[in-house]
Amino acid sequence: MNRQELFEQIKLKKSFLCVGLDTDIKLIPDFLLDSEDPIFEFNKKIIDATKDYCVAYKPNIAFYEAMGPEGWTSLQKTLNYIPKNIFTIADAKRGDIGNTSKLYARAFFEKMNFDSVTVAPYMGEDSVTPFLEFDNKWVILLALTSNKGSYDFQTLKVENEFLYEKVLAKSKEWGNTDNLMYVVGATQASYLESIRKIIPEHFLLVPGVGSQGGSLEDVAKYGMNSSCGLLVNSSRGIIYASKELDFAEKAAIEAQKLQIEMSKLLDLYL
Amino acid sequence: MNRQELFEQIKLKKSFLCVGLDTDIKLIPDFLLDSEDPIFEFNKKIIDATKDYCVAYKPNIAFYEAMGPEGWTSLQKTLNYIPKNIFTIADAKRGDIGNTSKLYARAFFEKMNFDSVTVAPYMGEDSVTPFLEFDNKWVILLALTSNKGSYDFQTLKVENEFLYEKVLAKSKEWGNTDNLMYVVGATQASYLESIRKIIPEHFLLVPGVGSQGGSLEDVAKYGMNSSCGLLVNSSRGIIYASKELDFAEKAAIEAQKLQIEMSKLLDLYL
Repeated sequence: MNRQELFEQIKLKKSFLCVGLDTDIKLIPDFLLDSEDPIFEFNKKIIDATKDYCVAYKPNIAFYEAMGPEGWTSLQKTLNYIPKNIFTIADAKRGDIGNTSKLYARAFFEKMNFDSVTVAPYMGEDSVTPFLEFDNKWVILLALTSNKGSYDFQTLKVENEFLYEKVLAKSKEWGNTDNLMYVVGATQASYLESIRKIIPEHFLLVPGVGSQGGSLEDVAKYGMNSSCGLLVNSSRGIIYASKELDFAEKAAIEAQKLQIEMSKLLDLYL
Repeated sequence: MNRQELFEQIKLKKSFLCVGLDTDIKLIPDFLLDSEDPIFEFNKKIIDATKDYCVAYKPNIAFYEAMGPEGWTSLQKTLNYIPKNIFTIADAKRGDIGNTSKLYARAFFEKMNFDSVTVAPYMGEDSVTPFLEFDNKWVILLALTSNKGSYDFQTLKVENEFLYEKVLAKSKEWGNTDNLMYVVGATQASYLESIRKIIPEHFLLVPGVGSQGGSLEDVAKYGMNSSCGLLVNSSRGIIYASKELDFAEKAAIEAQKLQIEMSKLLDLYL
């Protein structure tokens, strides 16, 4: 999916919601455990329930990898089930030397046909650029994450800039606004203003709204640009809204709540 | 495997060689492609041929992931085939927020039973510590990698230190010499002296000897400590020494060459 198509979907659905499919066998409703592929069964029902309110799905790959080879089958089935007009993100946080990153890119873009993959920046340019060589595919590079550990290295000062600002400034030269997005944690919305000075046009993937805290209003206020430029993720707050028979219904309600809030913010700032 | 057992193996085999199982379906001998699981068949023969000369095997996970679910099956079979007295490294370069890193740890340590996994440091403490909570399992944290992109961020100056030195100094507090090693590229052996001032006792995993360049002598001279403290990896130079019927034989010869060189270096510096 390209940038224009993504923006069209955002305007159409009045939403910039990404639903995180962090599907944990230990957290899904018990009655699903009897089905042949409980993980896929759960995802299918969540997708059916939320697809009108979101523009992206983001399976966190760890949850599938932890299930062994069958986990990858559940992931592939999930990906195939997602409607084609919804942007897909492999939240994999990969990154290795060039020829190895190329293999990860092939795994996620060719073997599985994701639209995008999250990538860690520590190994530098040649660990990132192999992911940028695929048409209409995206790298979503970690810049400022939403966890406590983000303060260990990302906010170290390098020549009067934060390390994550160096990452933004340097890496934006490796791609462009049509193949590169950034992960920016919502718990640090106050940083968004300065981030937008470095990358005014890029899309940002914002985790950390919902269970991880962070204000949607602040994210929109400081982060939205003329093509929205935001994908805001919520995982547990939506997919685990209920552990009962009504889990999909409850997920729909939570997703819709966010969509309505986003609709207002789009009216206000776009 | 614990530190003492690893050191015993190093002394016994007079080797600190790690063989990288970067097994690419496009690079293995054609005649193997008819077998049921060519990747495993190749690895099995490489393991049989090299196991007396090395103390560790390091499958790079990208190569298996790129094959889809079957790739993970080949990986599991390979891991099960490796003799128990050889240290195993999942070269995965994972790292995510705490609960997600925990799932990656479960995948590699419990589901697959690797001794260690490589982890990227960018997301900080809570992305690394979940991997440190398993008995006799190891994190191998990226510090200074061997690729060109290592100069993009790892060698940025932070308060008169390189970023990778900050990573070493901070992260060594998260674990200890019995559960934490570091990736340090051999192409930058001149850095090893200063690295040893920060982490004199930790084991280092050194990629980049062989195809990626780097001198084994320099690595031993500047990096070896009183328990050896080194695992030096070679992948392509060994496993792709020949593409013919004699590929395993040729792999054995290349592995033995390195082992003989290492034996001399152990006599010299240990």
